[in-house]
Amino acid sequence: MVAGNDNVRNGDVRVTVENVHDGTDSAGMTDMTVGIVGLGLIGGSLARRLVRRGVRTIAWNHRDHPYAQAEADGIRCVPTLAELAAAKPAVIVLCNPLKAMPAILAVLKPVLDPAATTLTDVGSVKGMVRDQVEAAGLEECYVGAHPMAGNELSGWQAADPALYDDALWAVTVRDDTAYARCHTVMRLITEGVGNRVIVLNDTVHDQAAALISHMPHVVATALINQLTDDPNRNIAAALAAGSWRDMTRVALTDPDRTRAMVDEDAANVEALLRSVAVRLTAVADALHYGDDDAMTRFFTDGQPFRDYKMAQRSATVCYEERDVPFDPSHWQTDLLASARRGEHIIGFASDHAVRVQVRSAV
Amino acid sequence: MVAGNDNVRNGDVRVTVENVHDGTDSAGMTDMTVGIVGLGLIGGSLARRLVRRGVRTIAWNHRDHPYAQAEADGIRCVPTLAELAAAKPAVIVLCNPLKAMPAILAVLKPVLDPAATTLTDVGSVKGMVRDQVEAAGLEECYVGAHPMAGNELSGWQAADPALYDDALWAVTVRDDTAYARCHTVMRLITEGVGNRVIVLNDTVHDQAAALISHMPHVVATALINQLTDDPNRNIAAALAAGSWRDMTRVALTDPDRTRAMVDEDAANVEALLRSVAVRLTAVADALHYGDDDAMTRFFTDGQPFRDYKMAQRSATVCYEERDVPFDPSHWQTDLLASARRGEHIIGFASDHAVRVQVRSAV
Repeated sequence: MVAGNDNVRNGDVRVTVENVHDGTDSAGMTDMTVGIVGLGLIGGSLARRLVRRGVRTIAWNHRDHPYAQAEADGIRCVPTLAELAAAKPAVIVLCNPLKAMPAILAVLKPVLDPAATTLTDVGSVKGMVRDQVEAAGLEECYVGAHPMAGNELSGWQAADPALYDDALWAVTVRDDTAYARCHTVMRLITEGVGNRVIVLNDTVHDQAAALISHMPHVVATALINQLTDDPNRNIAAALAAGSWRDMTRVALTDPDRTRAMVDEDAANVEALLRSVAVRLTAVADALHYGDDDAMTRFFTDGQPFRDYKMAQRSATVCYEERDVPFDPSHWQTDLLASARRGEHIIGFASDHAVRVQVRSAV
Repeated sequence: MVAGNDNVRNGDVRVTVENVHDGTDSAGMTDMTVGIVGLGLIGGSLARRLVRRGVRTIAWNHRDHPYAQAEADGIRCVPTLAELAAAKPAVIVLCNPLKAMPAILAVLKPVLDPAATTLTDVGSVKGMVRDQVEAAGLEECYVGAHPMAGNELSGWQAADPALYDDALWAVTVRDDTAYARCHTVMRLITEGVGNRVIVLNDTVHDQAAALISHMPHVVATALINQLTDDPNRNIAAALAAGSWRDMTRVALTDPDRTRAMVDEDAANVEALLRSVAVRLTAVADALHYGDDDAMTRFFTDGQPFRDYKMAQRSATVCYEERDVPFDPSHWQTDLLASARRGEHIIGFASDHAVRVQVRSAV
């Protein structure tokens, strides 16, 4: 791991890019007030981390039970969303449950000042949230976000600034998103939270999330169904070992929650399930006809991913850092291309260049 | 866990059924000599465990480098397979690599006394091994076996009697297998090793192994191929978390070994891959057409397996024990039916009844 303690210029503000592991040092980002909606695991951990890093943080929660402890932690708590918006934070981060989103957006719309505040969220699907933001008439000031952070717990009591240690955030923008909006959210993440960012569009985000999470949940469920439907299920269960345990673990979690996740990203999951079904059928055919070449191709195709994981595991991982310039007229395309190369943004080199670490290059 | 310290009659031999967790206590099984072929991880651990439990153990290895340490442990080591057979062990357990099986069987055939010795093995596929045994003309004295034991290590240096702690063995028989042969191998496992047994035929074993291991390895490989082939693979890899890690772990192991495993059980893997592909396509269709009923069925189908795993995790697991009688004229069918009910044999109640624990009932 490289500690990125380089002093870099970010327009006219001199900032320090913190060691991405470090959730406690002050970030020097004292010019930004951040508003947090929802003090659950994700929002509470974020608020506590921001305060620890010297960022002014104001919060609203649908119930006030965490307020005493949050105030003691240095988080300013307000009784209404109107008061949160009236404080004109540079960013409001919606950390409420997805199902509460339309109601909260409707309350925010008349009180939020788009000239002062950029709106973002932490939802695990981005297309659906943007549709809700658009329906509320807040699209102009919205940038989507999805931090790769979480655990099996929930609620303020589980909130922990370390939840965001070394976390990556996906930020999603549209072709008509203003760069200033994206820049504000990227600063919140890199300087405020001390994390990494990749900039995507909603489609790429939701496809990738379907690939690495939503579709695999369906596959794991199909596996436990296959066993349950087998007349020899008890024999199979008796013989099951580590490979079966790992491949079915996510099928044991609340199936209603899994189904909701799949429904929210239905089109992407559908396409991926068809693709995986084709792959499995191709192997079945290769086994049936003894097609050695097809079997060889199947077992070598994923070698770049094996190599990537092997490199990740090596004890001496040292990430290359570089400045990546972008064209202001199509910054969205340039930053997406950077993400496709496996680069994670850790700060700004100039008005037209981000500082990146090469992190996930398969 | 129930400690089964019941004194039970096994024909005219009084034996003690040990606590299945216990790898160190003497088993009182001093009337049986066991021969081990191959002192690698599986064979070496088995030999060391048998000796610790007071069972006379004699071993041969294709190289003699483990002999000094094995002899010091109380394992009698011999320089040839002929000497191993000449000792007339009640059971010879073939723990050699599968690829060496034909050569070893050819050497054993002229020297093994079928009247004295029953032959078994520890291979993870049973149909193929039985074919090799039949080709060598040793079918009459053969019973297949597959202990659910192992780790990522290999070789005598990694051999550890605790590898078999609380292990289950699948034993495979044919319609024409003599009960006395199966009884000898079951005694080796329950009394000698202190483990549990289920009695299957080769087909049921190899189908179940395909279901819980060989097919899932292919599915995991298909997932990493899906990612590798995606133009957004680095973005997906960046977003990947626990579900992706667990579902692809087995795809990271040596693909040549995985392919060999799949090839050895090709017909069963083929059928299962087609079945899983049909399941995934059905979910894709349900998502496409918004078929709520189909989605509900998909997510409830595997509930018995979720319930089974939940029960397994409970801190107060206490397995029911019972005596299960069988008809000597079709003991194979009766013991297979017992395995299908999730019963694991831990000893003998009489000449015509086994003692079981209800362990894997889904």
